[in-house]
Amino acid sequence: MNLDRVFGALADPTRRAILARLAAGEVTVSELAEPFDMSLPAVSKHLRVLEQAGLIHKDKVAQSRPCRIEPKTLEAVDQWLEDYRQLWTESLDRLEDYLKTLQAKPKAREKRHVRRKK
Amino acid sequence: MNLDRVFGALADPTRRAILARLAAGEVTVSELAEPFDMSLPAVSKHLRVLEQAGLIHKDKVAQSRPCRIEPKTLEAVDQWLEDYRQLWTESLDRLEDYLKTLQAKPKAREKRHVRRKK
Repeated sequence: MNLDRVFGALADPTRRAILARLAAGEVTVSELAEPFDMSLPAVSKHLRVLEQAGLIHKDKVAQSRPCRIEPKTLEAVDQWLEDYRQLWTESLDRLEDYLKTLQAKPKAREKRHVRRKK
Repeated sequence: MNLDRVFGALADPTRRAILARLAAGEVTVSELAEPFDMSLPAVSKHLRVLEQAGLIHKDKVAQSRPCRIEPKTLEAVDQWLEDYRQLWTESLDRLEDYLKTLQAKPKAREKRHVRRKK
């Protein structure tokens, strides 16, 4: 797994759109080229970058070239993110604590108000 | 959030190592340059790419330049992955089903064996 290649391949909107299309199921190279309004060589170039990164697999079946996504590579990106995940869950926890403090405050004020009334 | 820039910034081992260092806490640019055995301008160039992608924030405090990670940007990568996550959980489920079938098979054979004995 070469994360440089994986992230490099993902740094392009067309390649991410191709991945999104392949996530729905296997398609041939020519079927893939159609919605993108791109030439076959241009699509092939993007597919080569995705294939070299291990994000897709291209079969060689007669004239058609069925492509499918390789979820294992995206799973590796997910595993790389794992070390950082606690950073945003921690900040969400802190926000939750802060919101709890805000919710607790009016009650404290109410109590004081009640005390004053007495 | 520009995912092209984010993935582009992550497509480099030094920049990923800088992020890993910053995940542990805020450090200045010069503290950051030390373990990487790189010149200050070289580190600064990497930091600029990370900053432009929104992955880090560089403060301007007198002579020191404290840097900190921006977890929100990595969280956006995590959200982008969300659409694909079911692809590998599905294949794990399929593997689990297959393993269950394998575990069930010897029992079936045992039953047949018992029947034959009768």
